[in-house]
Amino acid sequence: MNGSVVVLSGGTGGAKLARGLLDVVGPDRLTVIANTGDDVEIYGGYVCPDPDLVSFWLADRIDPRGWGLDGDSFRVMDMLRELGQEIWFNLGDQDLAIALRRAQRLAEGQRLTETQLELNRQLGVSATILPMSDRPVRTRVLAAGRWRTLQEFLILDAGRGEVQDVQFHGAQTAGTTPEVLRAIADAGTIVVGPSNPVLSIGPLLAIGELRHALVAAGAPVVAVSPIVGGEVLKGPTATFMRYRGVEPSAAGIARLYGGVINGIVSDEPLTELPSSVTNLMMEGHEGRRRLAEATLDFASTLASNPQPSSFPAQR
Amino acid sequence: MNGSVVVLSGGTGGAKLARGLLDVVGPDRLTVIANTGDDVEIYGGYVCPDPDLVSFWLADRIDPRGWGLDGDSFRVMDMLRELGQEIWFNLGDQDLAIALRRAQRLAEGQRLTETQLELNRQLGVSATILPMSDRPVRTRVLAAGRWRTLQEFLILDAGRGEVQDVQFHGAQTAGTTPEVLRAIADAGTIVVGPSNPVLSIGPLLAIGELRHALVAAGAPVVAVSPIVGGEVLKGPTATFMRYRGVEPSAAGIARLYGGVINGIVSDEPLTELPSSVTNLMMEGHEGRRRLAEATLDFASTLASNPQPSSFPAQR
Repeated sequence: MNGSVVVLSGGTGGAKLARGLLDVVGPDRLTVIANTGDDVEIYGGYVCPDPDLVSFWLADRIDPRGWGLDGDSFRVMDMLRELGQEIWFNLGDQDLAIALRRAQRLAEGQRLTETQLELNRQLGVSATILPMSDRPVRTRVLAAGRWRTLQEFLILDAGRGEVQDVQFHGAQTAGTTPEVLRAIADAGTIVVGPSNPVLSIGPLLAIGELRHALVAAGAPVVAVSPIVGGEVLKGPTATFMRYRGVEPSAAGIARLYGGVINGIVSDEPLTELPSSVTNLMMEGHEGRRRLAEATLDFASTLASNPQPSSFPAQR
Repeated sequence: MNGSVVVLSGGTGGAKLARGLLDVVGPDRLTVIANTGDDVEIYGGYVCPDPDLVSFWLADRIDPRGWGLDGDSFRVMDMLRELGQEIWFNLGDQDLAIALRRAQRLAEGQRLTETQLELNRQLGVSATILPMSDRPVRTRVLAAGRWRTLQEFLILDAGRGEVQDVQFHGAQTAGTTPEVLRAIADAGTIVVGPSNPVLSIGPLLAIGELRHALVAAGAPVVAVSPIVGGEVLKGPTATFMRYRGVEPSAAGIARLYGGVINGIVSDEPLTELPSSVTNLMMEGHEGRRRLAEATLDFASTLASNPQPSSFPAQR
């Protein structure tokens, strides 16, 4: 295997693992393919929550609160409130600048990929972060009889209400990008980050071209389970896994990724698929680096051919 | 005459006089009709420099630097620069919030007038500030062989280069608003503020419906000259008056407003038109209040019928 690593990432979990991998393999060998199903056009800007979360982590500029840029202020949001606007999507001033810049570059004709690469250079990110597509894919959730964008569901509804349906609007026609296809084809290892398998990784796998590239890749594809000690560390993962008919467990993760992954890193042994048992907590630089190394070590033991899955492939 | 006062205003001069008039007549009797020819759509927002300058003055929130909100920060602009954007139009964070809010309300279907009234209420302005039109009028300047929006000319070109042409794009079809027509019809006194007669007041007079309402008004129309001691206090007034074929003097102002005004307040006597000589400086609250009182006192001596002008009407 060669040394380049591709990480599929949603938000926090994948971003933290990517930060650990950055320590291990360096920026030139690290590419993150990020979910854009959560993108929001708001305040005149174009917000890419997951790609930017990865950026902030890789630039060591993530705020301790867990989102946004370190030390950002909220002058614009405060003033919008003073002007009578109800703020349901909070955005720091510097974060807003990123969204405004992105919107302007897109309006000038740049592809989303080009804009993200440019923003990352300016933010001091030397690894490569690629949006999963240049075309809009929007994750929508039907809960309590009402369709919501994912951000609306998570923020306005606080993720409450039984999930009745999830759609990745636009995924069937979006396609992926030349940059993503090249990164997957050239990868030595492909890691599916410990993100929500339905909401964060689901949109990537819903893009047929991207899914097929993963299945056809020469590199082993290893998932890192987001289920820690039978619990989900962050976000409404359990809710959405149950909606997809699996238990919130490493086995459930493996089932959802059936046909795509060759192995899984989890904190409980699996019989259905090659697995590596390790501590999944990513406390501090050391914790992130340790999980990154454990993941790469495990991947190096796997055959480069896809393991025939014992699970039926799922959409 | 009744007590209601209508002020036609561009930027700083008109806004300062309006602040003085607010002291004299109170908010319920004061309406400012503001130039929107300088409006700019930028950073995802919709900026109305002149109406907002009046707002900030009337709310006692103008920053000592002469524009923007008192104590505003520039976090978004600083970050845009960090992201590689060249900032030629500087806007504070709170100012940006106003522009974003305006853009959103307009996108929701509000008229510009409704949006301005709502913003003013939220900013604590109790006088009435009306945009001259709900439709876009854009002042453009041809200088050094190149057409520029007014903001571009003043900022990017620093107002340099011989002025070859000035256009108020859209003025012929824009029309004014019911609110403006009602304010003019109901006015006891109409004051043309000491703003640039070509760039700041010119766009209002280029709107036929607004100009005709002024000519037909029962109230006397009094201009306050922006020419102080033969000098122009602020902005490229002299340049643009010469381009329009008049000297930068009170007589030149009277000529440009020929057919519209019944008298002029200036610091030099005029023979062509009823005039009142007074100190035009507006130093502090007292200075602004004094000029406001002098203007209203002079207006009360004028016939309510338009004085036949000795000058040919100019566009």
